[in-house]
Amino acid sequence: MAQTEGKKPISLQDQGVFAVGGGIIKAEGEYDPNNPKKDGQTLHIDHATIHYQIPINAKKLPLVFWHGFGQTARTWQTTADGREGFQTIFLRKGFSVYLIDQPRRGQGGRGPEETSIPATPNEQYWLGMFRIAKGDEFMPNVKFDKGPETLNQFYRQISPDLGAIDFEVNTNAISALFDKIGDGILITHSHSGGQGWTTAIKNSNIKAIVTYEPGSGFVFPEGEVPDPMESSAGTLEAVPVSKIDFLKLTKIPIIIYYGDFIPETQDSFYGTDNWRPRLVMAKLFVETINKYGGDAKVVHLPGIGIKGNTHFPMSDLNNIEIANLMYGWLNDKGLN
Amino acid sequence: MAQTEGKKPISLQDQGVFAVGGGIIKAEGEYDPNNPKKDGQTLHIDHATIHYQIPINAKKLPLVFWHGFGQTARTWQTTADGREGFQTIFLRKGFSVYLIDQPRRGQGGRGPEETSIPATPNEQYWLGMFRIAKGDEFMPNVKFDKGPETLNQFYRQISPDLGAIDFEVNTNAISALFDKIGDGILITHSHSGGQGWTTAIKNSNIKAIVTYEPGSGFVFPEGEVPDPMESSAGTLEAVPVSKIDFLKLTKIPIIIYYGDFIPETQDSFYGTDNWRPRLVMAKLFVETINKYGGDAKVVHLPGIGIKGNTHFPMSDLNNIEIANLMYGWLNDKGLN
Repeated sequence: MAQTEGKKPISLQDQGVFAVGGGIIKAEGEYDPNNPKKDGQTLHIDHATIHYQIPINAKKLPLVFWHGFGQTARTWQTTADGREGFQTIFLRKGFSVYLIDQPRRGQGGRGPEETSIPATPNEQYWLGMFRIAKGDEFMPNVKFDKGPETLNQFYRQISPDLGAIDFEVNTNAISALFDKIGDGILITHSHSGGQGWTTAIKNSNIKAIVTYEPGSGFVFPEGEVPDPMESSAGTLEAVPVSKIDFLKLTKIPIIIYYGDFIPETQDSFYGTDNWRPRLVMAKLFVETINKYGGDAKVVHLPGIGIKGNTHFPMSDLNNIEIANLMYGWLNDKGLN
Repeated sequence: MAQTEGKKPISLQDQGVFAVGGGIIKAEGEYDPNNPKKDGQTLHIDHATIHYQIPINAKKLPLVFWHGFGQTARTWQTTADGREGFQTIFLRKGFSVYLIDQPRRGQGGRGPEETSIPATPNEQYWLGMFRIAKGDEFMPNVKFDKGPETLNQFYRQISPDLGAIDFEVNTNAISALFDKIGDGILITHSHSGGQGWTTAIKNSNIKAIVTYEPGSGFVFPEGEVPDPMESSAGTLEAVPVSKIDFLKLTKIPIIIYYGDFIPETQDSFYGTDNWRPRLVMAKLFVETINKYGGDAKVVHLPGIGIKGNTHFPMSDLNNIEIANLMYGWLNDKGLN
């Protein structure tokens, strides 16, 4: 906790937490407090939980950060090796910051059905999928600290599902968040990438999208949907939406970042090869957006000389450089 | 989010999050990244997740806040009706603040066994147990906002168990937290009350304990354990510890607060009657601590003219008064 020595204090006008979205299930019958049974009682479900911080003299548009699969708001907070994450980096730049725990994850609500949390050891699998290491071997020159406590912290920020993942539930909750806070910029990662586009179609308060390594849910207009793409990790399918809905995404600037270690041709290792068709489909998505008058861009970080990034550029060793890249883009788009 | 208008900004030197404590389970065999199976993989379990904020010119001793049953760090953050909770109230007073999600809750780690999360409607039961309402009737003059959005938010701060509750796992994780941060003051609530005493026996870095409405786990020296006590909600049993361990609690100041609506004689309503033997046993606990030279006190809030408090005094409508009471006690004990 010494990494902020010499840094200026952060001045907050306000901070807090609230739940947003979700539903209520209610058991039949009437509740009797003198003989309490399930009858007539409620269970509030499917909300997102939002932590926010507002700096003094905040910029007009807040940043809303949405985590990926198996993650929570932790993705955007302190890095596994103990440095400041995007939450504090962008707060220092004067942005209001909202962090999401999506429905059925972390401090988000549970779902309407009883569910089971497995205790299956699977962390090395994910370290591969996240392009940090292949088995015991870190990726070459990876921008991930190799100290054992860093891996310990990284593994411990993984969080199980409290219920089935449901894109409709998730996008409704995040749309409700934008109803509450008004205009803002959505930043997504991995599994929330595709859900972010669906949410922006639902809610015009989303004025821009920054997405790190979207993993699925690329939307295309009906009739222009690319064929499924194969990799050593499985099949990637695009998602058809109506032309009217697709055109909503041409009204806001969109930027997509991918990191390093993504092969150009098929690789037998699932962890790297998984991302090959995703990068290809992201480029098709951007082409389609721009064909209809939109403003979208894919930045493959090695292509601009930034090497060694994993699936988590926001917490890699060069995350300040990654943040400045995003900051520069926001500036260019007049969103600062 | 307008409740801070006119308030001074909060100046932070540092903020962040980390995991602490816990264990690792590892599947037998060797992991093969080219053919990933469970073999040889790990699962990190049983850690607490800690959010901290350090104000500029922080006081020497940080405050460490531990939630109760079915709760997370949310207990100490924004109140259900949208006002500042103890996190921000005490940050404004210049204390460093650490908020716990205990193992197997919220952003804390899962346990070593597969576990099931029920989706059983039970919220009205808990509203009774928390002395907020009996069925549809709020407690008379209760210091809990009656707007529907307040109840909505309150219900949505309830969080399920990610694994079996295990006091040994919990107290080990919180002891590891005090190993990491050094001397501090532990503030507990309800289910963490008893665990707080056990943690203070384990770790002498805990220099004082403030507890709101401890619900179980009152420790007594072997041979001085009171008989079990009955209420309309069930049986309350004291916990024997060695005399040597018990005496450790006589070395630190301890204060215990209970709110309103606790009957003096048996009441048929489980929600109020549950707390009657707890208040009685808390007084016995304090007498025993003080008999051996300690410094403990029970404050029954109605007894000093503060009425209408529920089981959650830290978020009731008078929570600033409740915070000032705690602040005054810390001052009196030279802990400020």
